This record gives sequence, C-alpha cells and structure tokens, in this order.
Amino acid sequence: MPKRIAAFGEVMMRLQVPGYELLTQASSLNYSFSGTGVNVSAALARLGHEGYLITRLPENALGDAAASYLRKLGILPNFLRRGGKYMGLYFLENGFGARPGRVTYTNRLESSFNTAPADAYDYEELAKGIDIVHFCGISLAMNDAVRRHMKALARAVKAQGGTVVFDCNYRPAHWGEGGYALAKPQYEEMLGLADIVMMNEQDAMLTLGMPTTETDRLAQLAELIPAVARRYGIAVVAGTHRAINGDNTHSLQGYLYKDEAFAFSDKLTFAVYDRIGAGDAYTSGIVHGELQGFAPERTAGFAAAAAMLAHTIAGDTPMSSERDILRAMTDATGDVER
Amino acid sequence: MPKRIAAFGEVMMRLQVPGYELLTQASSLNYSFSGTGVNVSAALARLGHEGYLITRLPENALGDAAASYLRKLGILPNFLRRGGKYMGLYFLENGFGARPGRVTYTNRLESSFNTAPADAYDYEELAKGIDIVHFCGISLAMNDAVRRHMKALARAVKAQGGTVVFDCNYRPAHWGEGGYALAKPQYEEMLGLADIVMMNEQDAMLTLGMPTTETDRLAQLAELIPAVARRYGIAVVAGTHRAINGDNTHSLQGYLYKDEAFAFSDKLTFAVYDRIGAGDAYTSGIVHGELQGFAPERTAGFAAAAAMLAHTIAGDTPMSSERDILRAMTDATGDVER
Amino acid sequence: MPKRIAAFGEVMMRLQVPGYELLTQASSLNYSFSGTGVNVSAALARLGHEGYLITRLPENALGDAAASYLRKLGILPNFLRRGGKYMGLYFLENGFGARPGRVTYTNRLESSFNTAPADAYDYEELAKGIDIVHFCGISLAMNDAVRRHMKALARAVKAQGGTVVFDCNYRPAHWGEGGYALAKPQYEEMLGLADIVMMNEQDAMLTLGMPTTETDRLAQLAELIPAVARRYGIAVVAGTHRAINGDNTHSLQGYLYKDEAFAFSDKLTFAVYDRIGAGDAYTSGIVHGELQGFAPERTAGFAAAAAMLAHTIAGDTPMSSERDILRAMTDATGDVER
Amino acid sequence: MPKRIAAFGEVMMRLQVPGYELLTQASSLNYSFSGTGVNVSAALARLGHEGYLITRLPENALGDAAASYLRKLGILPNFLRRGGKYMGLYFLENGFGARPGRVTYTNRLESSFNTAPADAYDYEELAKGIDIVHFCGISLAMNDAVRRHMKALARAVKAQGGTVVFDCNYRPAHWGEGGYALAKPQYEEMLGLADIVMMNEQDAMLTLGMPTTETDRLAQLAELIPAVARRYGIAVVAGTHRAINGDNTHSLQGYLYKDEAFAFSDKLTFAVYDRIGAGDAYTSGIVHGELQGFAPERTAGFAAAAAMLAHTIAGDTPMSSERDILRAMTDATGDVER
Amino acid sequence: MPKRIAAFGEVMMRLQVPGYELLTQASSLNYSFSGTGVNVSAALARLGHEGYLITRLPENALGDAAASYLRKLGILPNFLRRGGKYMGLYFLENGFGARPGRVTYTNRLESSFNTAPADAYDYEELAKGIDIVHFCGISLAMNDAVRRHMKALARAVKAQGGTVVFDCNYRPAHWGEGGYALAKPQYEEMLGLADIVMMNEQDAMLTLGMPTTETDRLAQLAELIPAVARRYGIAVVAGTHRAINGDNTHSLQGYLYKDEAFAFSDKLTFAVYDRIGAGDAYTSGIVHGELQGFAPERTAGFAAAAAMLAHTIAGDTPMSSERDILRAMTDATGDVER
Amino acid sequence: MPKRIAAFGEVMMRLQVPGYELLTQASSLNYSFSGTGVNVSAALARLGHEGYLITRLPENALGDAAASYLRKLGILPNFLRRGGKYMGLYFLENGFGARPGRVTYTNRLESSFNTAPADAYDYEELAKGIDIVHFCGISLAMNDAVRRHMKALARAVKAQGGTVVFDCNYRPAHWGEGGYALAKPQYEEMLGLADIVMMNEQDAMLTLGMPTTETDRLAQLAELIPAVARRYGIAVVAGTHRAINGDNTHSLQGYLYKDEAFAFSDKLTFAVYDRIGAGDAYTSGIVHGELQGFAPERTAGFAAAAAMLAHTIAGDTPMSSERDILRAMTDATGDVER
Repeated sequence: MPKRIAAFGEVMMRLQVPGYELLTQASSLNYSFSGTGVNVSAALARLGHEGYLITRLPENALGDAAASYLRKLGILPNFLRRGGKYMGLYFLENGFGARPGRVTYTNRLESSFNTAPADAYDYEELAKGIDIVHFCGISLAMNDAVRRHMKALARAVKAQGGTVVFDCNYRPAHWGEGGYALAKPQYEEMLGLADIVMMNEQDAMLTLGMPTTETDRLAQLAELIPAVARRYGIAVVAGTHRAINGDNTHSLQGYLYKDEAFAFSDKLTFAVYDRIGAGDAYTSGIVHGELQGFAPERTAGFAAAAAMLAHTIAGDTPMSSERDILRAMTDATGDVER
Repeated sequence: MPKRIAAFGEVMMRLQVPGYELLTQASSLNYSFSGTGVNVSAALARLGHEGYLITRLPENALGDAAASYLRKLGILPNFLRRGGKYMGLYFLENGFGARPGRVTYTNRLESSFNTAPADAYDYEELAKGIDIVHFCGISLAMNDAVRRHMKALARAVKAQGGTVVFDCNYRPAHWGEGGYALAKPQYEEMLGLADIVMMNEQDAMLTLGMPTTETDRLAQLAELIPAVARRYGIAVVAGTHRAINGDNTHSLQGYLYKDEAFAFSDKLTFAVYDRIGAGDAYTSGIVHGELQGFAPERTAGFAAAAAMLAHTIAGDTPMSSERDILRAMTDATGDVER
Repeated sequence: MPKRIAAFGEVMMRLQVPGYELLTQASSLNYSFSGTGVNVSAALARLGHEGYLITRLPENALGDAAASYLRKLGILPNFLRRGGKYMGLYFLENGFGARPGRVTYTNRLESSFNTAPADAYDYEELAKGIDIVHFCGISLAMNDAVRRHMKALARAVKAQGGTVVFDCNYRPAHWGEGGYALAKPQYEEMLGLADIVMMNEQDAMLTLGMPTTETDRLAQLAELIPAVARRYGIAVVAGTHRAINGDNTHSLQGYLYKDEAFAFSDKLTFAVYDRIGAGDAYTSGIVHGELQGFAPERTAGFAAAAAMLAHTIAGDTPMSSERDILRAMTDATGDVER
Repeated sequence: MPKRIAAFGEVMMRLQVPGYELLTQASSLNYSFSGTGVNVSAALARLGHEGYLITRLPENALGDAAASYLRKLGILPNFLRRGGKYMGLYFLENGFGARPGRVTYTNRLESSFNTAPADAYDYEELAKGIDIVHFCGISLAMNDAVRRHMKALARAVKAQGGTVVFDCNYRPAHWGEGGYALAKPQYEEMLGLADIVMMNEQDAMLTLGMPTTETDRLAQLAELIPAVARRYGIAVVAGTHRAINGDNTHSLQGYLYKDEAFAFSDKLTFAVYDRIGAGDAYTSGIVHGELQGFAPERTAGFAAAAAMLAHTIAGDTPMSSERDILRAMTDATGDVER
Repeated sequence: MPKRIAAFGEVMMRLQVPGYELLTQASSLNYSFSGTGVNVSAALARLGHEGYLITRLPENALGDAAASYLRKLGILPNFLRRGGKYMGLYFLENGFGARPGRVTYTNRLESSFNTAPADAYDYEELAKGIDIVHFCGISLAMNDAVRRHMKALARAVKAQGGTVVFDCNYRPAHWGEGGYALAKPQYEEMLGLADIVMMNEQDAMLTLGMPTTETDRLAQLAELIPAVARRYGIAVVAGTHRAINGDNTHSLQGYLYKDEAFAFSDKLTFAVYDRIGAGDAYTSGIVHGELQGFAPERTAGFAAAAAMLAHTIAGDTPMSSERDILRAMTDATGDVER
Repeated sequence: MPKRIAAFGEVMMRLQVPGYELLTQASSLNYSFSGTGVNVSAALARLGHEGYLITRLPENALGDAAASYLRKLGILPNFLRRGGKYMGLYFLENGFGARPGRVTYTNRLESSFNTAPADAYDYEELAKGIDIVHFCGISLAMNDAVRRHMKALARAVKAQGGTVVFDCNYRPAHWGEGGYALAKPQYEEMLGLADIVMMNEQDAMLTLGMPTTETDRLAQLAELIPAVARRYGIAVVAGTHRAINGDNTHSLQGYLYKDEAFAFSDKLTFAVYDRIGAGDAYTSGIVHGELQGFAPERTAGFAAAAAMLAHTIAGDTPMSSERDILRAMTDATGDVER
C-alpha cells in the first residue's frame, strides 16, 4: 500500500560542468534541482509512494524552474511554498579516476528556504497529510529558524502517529570550526524524535562524541550503533560503508540495525557515473523495505542495490523502479534490453 | 578481389539518448540509420567489397535522410527501393555498469519494408548483380510477405550460383509467446537455403528444439553445431559466446565450424562503448575471411577482432578497415597514432 | 476562481531538428511531448486553472517520459491512463524565411490513444471532476473508437452541467480524399454538443459545405459564423485570420462571436520563432477570457496576445502567464527586464 | 598612444539559457563573466589600450574561472584581488520579438567584491598605475563600503592627475523604494569627482531631481545636460537614446556634450543579437574618441557604431577592433569577408 | 532525361563557429565539406541528374571524411582520386546584421588537389562519362598545374561533344596584387572553351578590362555581356546582382543572356540564413533550366528561386528539389507543411 | 620564489572530435590551442611561476583566438610575436579501449612559427627576462630557420646565467626516412646546451645511436642515461616509462638522474581521460621540483603525480595546482570535495 512521504529540506540548483572539464575550461553547465529531501521524495515516488516536499521556493524564474523540475521528478506539488528571492546553488566539476570531483557552493543562507518566516509552514495541517517525514543533517546546519521548523514539524508528525526519518549527514563545511560541539545538542534532539536514523560509526564518534576502543570500522559499528539506538530510542538505524577505488569504481556495503540485530548487504563493487545522491537512494531503499515489511537482510540488500544503481544514473536523484532494483539484486549484469 | 555483397533487411532509425541519461531525463536524441543488413553491408564495403542493401524506404524526409546516411556509410544506392510512408525506429538508452541499456521500439509492422508489395523487388535482376546475399532472423520474424521475399531472393541468388548467408538472430520479443514453435519451420527453410549460418548452441536448442545432455556451453556447441550443419547441409557455421562483466567490459570468443572441424578465436576481454551491431561485425569478419580464403583460425580471430573493435565504435555500424582489424589481432593496445 | 479544465486528446512526441538543418543534414533531434490537448491544458494551468489531460500513454520508457513531461508542463496526472505500446510521433524541420517548415508523421493509428479500448475512460467519473472539457478535430479524424470516446465524454460533461469546447482544426492529410464529406457528419455532431467552438469561415465553407457569395475573408466570416452559431446552438465562436510574411514575421487577427455580435482584436504583426501550437494559445485565451468574464473585445485581444507570445516560445506549448499576456497587450516591446 | 585604463567594479557570472527557451524549459546554460567594468576595460583593451580591472574575486573554482575569463578578454591581471567566498551571478533568458528578455539575480551583497574589507585596495598604489579610472552607478548602489572604495579611489586618481569616468547607470531594482532620494547624494558626490559622465535626461530628471518643462526627449536633453555639466563641473557628458522596435531591431542615437556644445551621431537602426553590454561599448567609444582627440561628432559616431556592433556580438562584452568600428561607420553592410 | 554532370574543383573543409560567436569566444566548430564544384554537382544531383566530382582527396582520415560527406550529398564516387596528404580548409564566423561574416583560410596550395601530378586524371576516360563539365575561377587562381588540368579536361569534354560551364568567380585574395592582369589571359582561355558562363558586368570590366561609359549596373550589363558572348563565342551567359540590406535580408536579381537577348528574374528580397554557396545554386538552376529546355525567363526565375532557397539552407551546398524550387517560384511563403 | 620561465615552440590548434566518434561520423569539433611549449609554460604558471611563450602567431582571426586562449591558460603575453598567415593544426579522434586514438596533421611547415624571419625574436632582450627556457625536439624537426632560433636563444639564455631545458621528444613522422641520422647532430648540439634534459633509453639508443647489450628497459636506462649525462655535461636527466593497458588505464613510472644517482617514482596505474600533454606535465613537475629544491625522490614522485593528473584533465594542457598534485601523491583517491 503506497504511503504518503514528505521530505523537509532545501532545493538546490545543481550546475554541473558537462563531461570532465573544469569550470576554468568549459563554457556551459547542465542544471537540475536536487537536495536530500528532493532525492528521497522522488525516489520513493518512483517506488510507488506519494512523494511530497516541504520547502520554500523563490517567486521568480528560478523558483518556477525548480517547481517544474520537481513535478517532473514525480514530486507532488501540494506542500511547496513560494516566497523570498533566492535559491542556493552549487557548481559541480566531475572527477575522473585519480582526480576527485569538486563542489563549489554559493551563499545559501539567504535562500527562500533558509529565510522562511516562522509561519511559513502550518505544521498541524501538513502532518495530517503525511505518513512519514524525512529530515537531514544538512538542514540542521543552516540556522535556528530552520531548526525550529524541523523540530516543530517532527513533533507534529509524531503527534499524528507518523514516522520520523532522520539522516545524520554531517557536513563539516556547514558547521565550521568547533562544529561537532555546536552540532551535538541539535543532533541529539533530532535523534530523540526519530524512528529511523541514517548514520554510521563516524557519526557516533565525531558528532555524538561516543568513545570506542575498536579500530576496525565494522567493530566500531557493532559497538556504537546499538548504543545509539538504545540511548535515543531509535527503532531502525541504517547506513553504509563506502570505499573509493582508483579505477572509477566504488565499493559499498549497507547495514541495517533493528530489533537488536544487524543485517548486512553484500559488499558491492561497481562502476560509478554520478556519485552524488547515492546515499539518498540507500535511505529510500531502507524506508521502502520497512514499509513493505521486507526482512532486514532483504531491506539492506534492496537499499544497497538501489544505491548502486543510483551511481549509474545522471544527476543527484535516483530514478530506479522497484523492478529495476530487484533485478539488480538477483541478476548478473544484463545485456541491452531489446 | 572485391565481391558484390547485398544484404536484405529493414533500415531502422536509431534514436539514442546522448550520454547516460534516461528518456525521462534528457531532451535530445542522436539519430542514425542501421539494421543488421545495413551493418553487414557497410562493414564489408569498408573491407573493400561492393556493399549493397536491398530494402524499401519511405518516400518522405525520413526516407531521404536514411538514403543519404546509407550512402555516407559506403553502401551503394543501386538496390534501394522507395515507397510507402513509414520507417521502423527504436529508442536507445545507454546502460552504464550495473544498469543495462534499454531499447524501446515503435510499431515497425507498417514500415515501407514490412509492407513492400509482392513486386517490390525483381529477384532475378537483383540476383544477377550479387555474389553473396545476407539475411537475418529479424526479417524472418516480421510477416509472411517479408518471408516470401527472403526465400524467393535466396533461391534466385542460389540459382545464379551465389552464396547465401543467414544470421539466426532470434529475438523473443518479435515472435511473441509460443514463438519458438512458430519460428522453427521458418528457420528450417532458411537454413536449408543457406551456405553460411551465424548461430550458436542456444539457437539449436531453443529455436530448432534440438536436445542435448551437456550442460556446459562449449560442450553443447560441440555436440549441436555439427548436427545442425549436417542436417541442413550448411558449409560454414559460426558464432560467438559473450559474457558481460560488471565493469563496462565484455568477454567474447568466436568459433567457426567448417569441414567438420571447429576453429576458435582467443577469448577477448575489452572495454565496451557501444554494444549494438557488434554481432554484425563478427558476421562481416567471417564472410570476409571466407572470401579471402583465410585459414579457419585466422577467420575466427579476424571476426572476433572485428567484433571487439565494433564495441569501441559509436553507433551500430562497424567502421574498421582491414588494416585496423589486423593490427588489433596482433598488437598490444597502442598509444595515440601521431 | 480557478476552474478544472480537462482536454481530451493524443500526446505526440515531437522530434525537432535543432536550428535550420534538414533531417538529411543533421544528426540530433530535440524532443518534447505535445498535442492540442496538451497545449490547451498546460496553457490554462499557466493561467491559474487546474489543467488535466484525458489520454492514454504506453507502458514503456516513452510513456514514462511523456508522463514526466506533462507533469513538468503543469498538467495534473490524475486522468492519465496507461496501456498499449506505441505513441504517435512527428519530425519537425524548421522553416526559414522563404523555405517553409516541414512535418513528417509516423504511423499514429496504432498508438495507445488511438487503440484505447471501450472501457478505457470512465466518462461519468471523469465528468464529475471537470468544469470544462476540450476536444479537437484532429482526434475526430482518427477512428470510430476515438470518436465514440469523444462524444460519450462530451455528453457526460454536459450532463454534469459542464462546458464543452471544440476546436474544428481540420487537417486534410488526416481525412484523406473525399475527406470533407466524411468529416461533415462527425463535425456536425460535435458542433451540436459544443458551447465554445474554434473555427473560421474556411471551416464553414469546406467542412460544413456552407455556401457564400462573398469573396473577402472578413465578409465571409461575417456571413457564415452567425449562421453556424444559430444552426448548431453555439454560445461562443472564435478564431483567427493569419497571414505569413516573407521576412519571418506573421500577422494575426482574432475574432470572437457571441451574443450575435463580433469582437475583433487588433491585427498584430510579429517575429515568429516557433509557430506550432500558437492556435492553442488562442483557444486558451478565449477560454480564460470567458471564465474571467472579460468583455468580448478584451477576450479577443487577450487571446490574440497569447497567440502572439506563443510564436516567440520554443516548443508547441504556450508558456505565458496572465501577467505576461496583459503586458504584451498594453506595452510597447520592452527592454531586457532586470 | 595607448593609455592605462582601470575600471572599478564587480565581476558577475552570467548564466544564459541558450537559444530562446525559458529556464523552466531548458537544461543547460552558457556562462561567462562580465560587469560594466569588465566590459569597458576589455573594450578599451581591444581598442589598443592597457585595460585593468580593480575588483575582488573569491578564492575558489569560480574565482579561478573568472580570472581566466578576464585574461582571455584581454584584461591585465595586475589589479585583481582575491578573497571571500562568493560571486554575484545572474540568469539571462533571451527575449524574442514581442517577448522581452528576463534577468534573475542571485544575492550579490555577500560577494567577494561587496564584502571587500577597508584595506582591500591600496588606492595610492593603484592610482599610480592608472591614467583613467571608470566607475558605474551599479557599484554605487551596493553598500557603504563599496561607496567608500569608489570615492577614495576616485580622489586618489584625481590627485595623481588622472581622469575619472562615471556612468550613472541607475537601476531601480538595486535602490529599492524611495531609491532616487537615497541615490541623489551619492550620485552628486560622484558627479563632483568625475571628468567624463555617461547619462541622459532621465538621470537628470529622476536621480538628480532636476525639473524641466519640456516633454520631448531631445529638448529635455538640450535643457538639462548643460545644466548638469555646469553644476558639477563635468568636462564631457555623453549618452544615448534607444528605441526598441517590434521586429528584433533597435534604434540608437548617441550624443556628446562638451565645450558647451552638443554633437550627435546618426540615428542607427539595426538587428539585435545580444543587447546587454551595448551601453558599455558606447562608453568605451567615447573614452577612446576623447583619448584619440577625435572631433566630437566623430567621437559620437564612433561610440554609436561601437554600440551598434556590440548588439551583434554574443555576450555582454564588446569585441570590436577600431578597424571594425571605423568600417561600420562608413560602409554599407558588407558581404562575407573572404 | 537526367544528364551526367561532373564538376572539377577542390574540396574544402568548412569549419564554422556555431551561432554568432567569434573564434576567440567559442570552443567548438561545425564542419562540412564543400567547394564550388561540390555545390554544383550536389545541387544538380538533387535536381535529378547524375552528379560527379573530379578532384583529389588526401589518403587519411580527413580524406575519408570528405569522401563520406560527398557521398552523403549524393555525389557519385566514381571520379574521386586519392593521394597526397593535405586538404584546404577555411574557418567561418557568421555575421549578424551590421557585422559581416568572416572567412579565414589555411594554406591550400599544398592540398592534394593543388598538388595533383600531371597524370592524376585520365581526361579522355573521364570525358567519355560526362555530358557537362563545370569549372570555376577559384581553381583557375591556384597554380599552373591546376590550370593545365582544367584546360585539358575542358578540351577533352568538348572533343567528346560535351558542354563546358565556366563560373568566373574572381576572388581578389587569390590572385594577389596586380591580379587582374595575371588573371586575364587565363580567363580568356577558359572563356574561349566555355559554352555556358557565369559572370556579370564586374567580371567584364575588371578581369577582362572591357571599358564602358555606363555607370548604372544594369546598363553596364546590357552593354558588356553581349560583347563578351560575341568575343568568346559563348552560347549562354548568366549571373546575378545582389544587394545586402541591413536587417539580415538580401536582394537578388538573376539574368540570362542567350540568343542575343536578356531574360531577367524578378528581384527577390528574402531573409538570409547562410549566404555561402548561393551563387552555386544559381549556376545549378541555369544548367538545369538549359537541360530541361525551359524558356529563358523561366530558367532565370528558376535559378533565382534556387539561389534564394540556398540562402535559407545550412551549409554551403544547396539542398532543394525541383519541386521545392517550383513552389518557391509560384507560391507565397507557406505555413508549416503538415 | 616564483621564476620566470619561457618556452619556445609552436602553437598548434587542436581540433578534437567530441566523444568517441570518428571524423567520418561526427559533424563538430572542439578546439583549443596547445603545443609542448604551451603546456609546459601554462603548467608552470599554474604552479606559481611566471610562464611565457616565445612564438609567432598569424595576424588573423586564428591568431587572435590563439592569443586569447594562451592568456586564458595563464601564459603572459609579453613574448608573443605576430606575423605570417597560417597556424599548424591537428585533428584528434579519441581512442577507446582496444581502438587507439588517431592524430591527423595539416601542413605546418608554412605556419607563422615555422616561417618566422631571422629577426623575429630579439634573443638578448628575451634572455634578460627569463630564468629558464624550454625547448623541445618537435621544434628541432621543423627546419633550419627554427633550429637557428632555438640555438641562438639557448646560447643567449646561458650567457645570461639562465637554465636551458630540452625535451628530446623525437617524432619519427617529422624527420621522415633516415630520420635518426638527420636528427643526431641537431640533438647533440641541443644536448650540449642543455642543463635539464627529458629523455629515456629509447632516445639514447635510437636518436643518439648509443649501443647497449641490455634488453630490459630499466637496465638499458641504468646503463645509458649516465653515459648521456656525462658525454653532454647535463645536470639533470629525467623521463618516464609508460605501459598502455587494455582497459583504458595506463601505467607510468618516472625517473630522475642527477648527481650520478637515479631516483624513481612509484609505478602508478590510473584511468586515462586525455593522454596528450601528460609528458609535458611530467616535465613541468621536474622543473618545479628542481626550482623548489625538492629531494630527487620527491621531484620524481611529484612529476609522476602531475603526469597522472594530466591524464584526467580534458585537453593537452595540465591544469593542476601544487596542492592538487601534493594531495594526489599522498592520499587515496578522494570522494567528491564538498
């Protein structure tokens, strides 16, 4: 049964240098609109749910273009708000092999989303139309007003019996120096509100400051994640371990912690076309697996396959159907379908 | 000594999404004109022969564009017929790594080729200008009228002392449910007319319904192909085994069965840029090797190298010269030629 | 107050040669999805109404792409049906100056829309969600099944108290030889059901076979349109006179006949970028003017300005807001807005 | 003898939708870097002078790209400062015929230029390397810090015996409501420092609040400009009158007031490809004419021809050589030069 | 009845900056292959004749690309010779309005064509396959070896009873200073061999040094062309008068002198997309009219319409069918054909 | 401390087929300007030095475009000379996997650089502004005039106390048959003037004709390079060994011989995007390491990392900063930087 899933978050304009030139070399850019919320909402819409986005877009040509683009992705327009003048945007130069990709942001703090007034969103009304709401750590890094919106909305959804998903997604650049200390109380508040949390041992160690004597990643994960789940009362914790190889391939393993047990996906290694947004595909796979009542191993495998496919898709936003993902879980790489 | 080689078959318009976007993401398409017959005829023209195509193109702007494109490929225009209004076309979304490519067809049954009237081609006259004629199983799947053209033309060429090449090329989508049973008598008739046949053990098992107790592909091949050659009186049977790897590479081994003996190429593994049409490159290599009187091992190796290079070429149609292929057979991968 | 407006009609894929090359010269195409119904529904959505499309799209990658594109245009997805395998498509070569543009169609008769089964649309249910329904003469030319859908839906909407708009839009190529005779009874039936009709004196003379002794276009219009309105009981009849000038400009004058009186727009002359779909902009302007209760002169002027702007927009589908159109009605051509 | 000319002003990234699509329709943008100062400096470099830009660019990939682009335009890099994180940028949708173009800005107030600290520029040192310095009213609209830089630099250049050029260039959007009152004292201070001023009667009436009883533009000009020159002690005042025609052409007439006399160019009418930056071409023509000691009529004609050619050049920045402009002044439109 | 028409001349690679940028601004080029001979041969092939080109192409990737391109244009490959290493090429920057286009050549004197050895072409053998041969003044400007080929081939064709067409096409840049004196004897020799000559009064005055007291172009034409025809024994002389207007339109009038009488086309004014090669369309129209036995007025009108349409076609080479041209002669500018 | 580094060499226009099509398939080209000198000068400018180029560019649109491009790359314009009419250019078809790339040259011998007159460069004046001058073997292959310029300039720089770098860079195609014998005395003269030489054992064996009994590349290197350094009195000799793998990766190991000892980089294996110009990145890394006083192992490692990164950059010219290279030396391949 399809669910009504709303993500709360900023829409960013992505301006990508085509091919493998640098900004100093090229003269054109491809643009699209994305953001963690956009990606999760659109991915779940593609998986058969009703996907909404709670955000604020400027009242100008950029806002119109973003709204059109979101509709094209399959996001239902009902919860989009318009107001303000600016939109955050980022420039992406693709990496190749030994040369990493590079993102350059413009000032997003004055965006329509980040300057939304206190009455921009009617939390109660929104919460009535939502089964699941999704938040991410990037929004949490913005400013107090955004944080107030996040927490009020999370509480409203919980009050209506809905589910709260929170993706930790800590970005050092957004919190600045001394960021972990600033972030910790904010994260703890969100974790206390969340039912499903996306994170791994790094978040526990760095953001939450939890100590461990283990040195191996998996051992750290095994020690810390149950502690996190326990401390904050989280039903499901999930995340990935990623390794980046020198030949344009990545390796990825997903995990899911639930009912005091870990489930792991296979470790997948695959060629990478567009890395951005693949984590959001993993999130959408976890949410979908939980909604469908998949066994934890199946959910982790489904989410990892969804993430793998998202690396083969142009743009930030996952585009795979459930059928695509199920086939990728079971089949060998196929020939052209004709 | 160059030969006159005509392929009989439909010209399809190929509409390819550039790069790695999906049809729902992109806004432009690259187009070209191809088809098994086009590919084989053009590939043999590039190898120094006279390449012709026997087909029917619509009398409109699409037909004009197709005719121009065929001339550009080096196909001589003498046997092109014009009439009717439509052309079959297909949309191609490129795969990447774990995500397979995808082809979407439009309705081709009303194309100028598939609606060619009984008197569209003067078989006797055509046969006089041809040393070798090529047919493929895709045409065989179309309708009775096309099948009648195929068989009448094959008989006319044989009557003139020419050689008939038949590529089994069974596509399940074209025959529909119960397709193998429908196809079998048609294939048997074409096999009875053919001197050179492109196929492998799958065709023998599925289309011809020949049983085997072997489970290994090579063992199946060794058992079934001699039986096919014997039963239908075929001088040369050839084909490939392909494996698709997860990292945008394929592996390919070619075989040639002739005079009651198998010859095999090395198993080649190589990066793949455009997979479509590579089988036609293999066919053209087999035909060229036979025409040049290469030893069977050399013919299989030449055809496999031709197929490998065809995977590195944009578009369906092979573009390699004999010199390119010979170098690929003997050299290590070279540096930029300058 | 925004109204709920649904258009019934086929979605076509438009494949346009970029710039001014011919199909025989170019190697790429820009694609979009349009159709009279698409254009009218999207234009009215841009003017602030709820725009729907009642149609049937194939269940494959083309259908997905079309559905995405319609959402992007602002058309609400509620009434889209999926089924069948094919979509009509047309190739467009742009004209320049003395060289007219050229459209080449593929076979559309087997499209998902044109092969929709008798139970494809639940007329009663659809009619409940609609204030205004729009049909066009192109659909009427397709086949009996489509015509049955049109008339049943029109009757259902009328039964619910809704308004029926019919655009005559006679295309000789679709009706073939003796087309006017075939078309006349079909048109008469639709005219009998319609409240607002788009046509001009040519339709009256050719399709309806109405005689006139006048030779001047305006005199013919003045004589025939009132007769048509009377005979078929039509509340509003509207249309345009177009002249094509040699220097990439067109001239256009719109008329509106209502309450036994004619209103005319100014005769506008303007540079043309993309002529296709401009008639649908005129239709949407008439409908919007009627819905807003504009005076007839204002409605005709608004619709003509909407049509003029549609000639300056890339693609078939009008993209102007009410504010854009009102400014074009009153201002001189403006400088860059910054 | 070439002069050393430095412009002070912000570098903006221009993101232009290619062709005539809107931002909601397209998916790529062409980018370049411009600004009034960039345009004037580059245009004068192309006319044989040493062109510098005094500005501040961010220390990131955007700043690198901008610096490369300025060098490519021929601007000498000596006076570029680096620091801060952001760059102003604007989106440009081209107009066509009756549809005006549209510019959408991002927030530029936090750009590296607009946040340059008090010690960002060493006025004395810069002034020593400059014969002429150029400022524009857009910079004047930014904030107090920028205004302080402008005035301090202008005074330093004057102190060294250099020439100050000021282009009034009032943009209502930048000053907001009540803008003229806010702007007037700032403008008056700059006019008091300037030797050459670009303006027309609109600036005198609106920004400076000077009354006139004339209603005709030329009469207003004749009354007000001498008064401005007298009041603020300006040696040369120059500007243009522009009319925008419906068929993608503009009409332009330039004037120059000097030594208590007006000189006018012919009224030129010409096809327009890219309107932005054409005013800066006029400025550069006036400065060049003054530097070369042209007679006033010749200077006005030269500047108007430079402006006309700038409308035929892609991008904001004029690209014409002195030879190009002189030919445009004297010849009929020429055939392809080969 | 279609004729066999061969043009003798160099194939040039055309490298065109897309749109309206300059070479210093852009980063990509569109390429094609053309030349007066290419244009005339391809245009006549499109009009239903057999079109050949007698030329020499390099034995490398450029030569392969050129040969493919010529086949695509419909030129039969029989008379193409291969040898040498280089191909002439030129860069084209499009003009816009008041800014003229600009052509920059590379060194063509070492091209395969211009270094063809004495035995490169078997004149007798070629002449047997030709009804009409076309030469142009650009080839005449190259070097003595090319001139020897031209004259020997012209004589061989005449000896076989064929027709010789010569297009004067004097380009000052190719002959250098004192060019008219150098050119005159060469032109006189070609005129003495020619049956159909393309020229106007400028060629008579400047190249042939014929005096006139008339000052009006038409009067000069009326005086000089009959004298030229008489002096050199030319059956048909034809040419055009062109005027270039400021708004991206040109005006053109064609003339034909034959049997001691002039025929003129209407003076056509039309929007121009690509001016290069339009003169060759006029030539092909004259040749076609003569071959079809059109009355002189009809031939001049046909040729002028062919030239007009060639201005609306991308690339140097005319692409219009006889049907296109006849419609352009008689109809008003048409709407999109659909 | 930044140094003043000038390279002497020809600027070539690079015309690259985009993607992986062949010249016979494509219709557009990307262009840029490069050459060994361009690459070395620009790479060292990016590493913080003053980079100059001593060359001669034509006085036309191509020369303007080249000069703009060089400025964009960060090359200071002071030593550019203008004159002559032509520029060498080459066409590049990218290879893919088993299909090698291919370069086709036009005639460069008549380029402005290769026809520079004896007084084109004022050696003494240039030498005063230079700390280091770079030459390459490609220039040495051109003609006597170029060789005279090279040697005179090298002597002048040495006379001023500057450093001479010489890259052997032997290209068989430029010297023709018997090339090694022709080249040897020229190379010996340059080696006698050089302080830093780029070469490997192949150059010693083939160009200098030095014998070795070793068969292993490293053993040959170990035997021959010290002998070369001794014989010609060279302070630093450096170079690379490259292997080309079948899967679009290369392997590279750099060496540096100095003070009678060898230092080696790690053997790096990496995905290759654009192979051309990577050798020049290695050269620039060696020169930078020497200028910074790096230990030899660090210099070799730095240069090898610079070369590796250059394979990941579009175009011939390296674009990496010192920070980029240092990170590539020490880190694992990184994730997108954001």
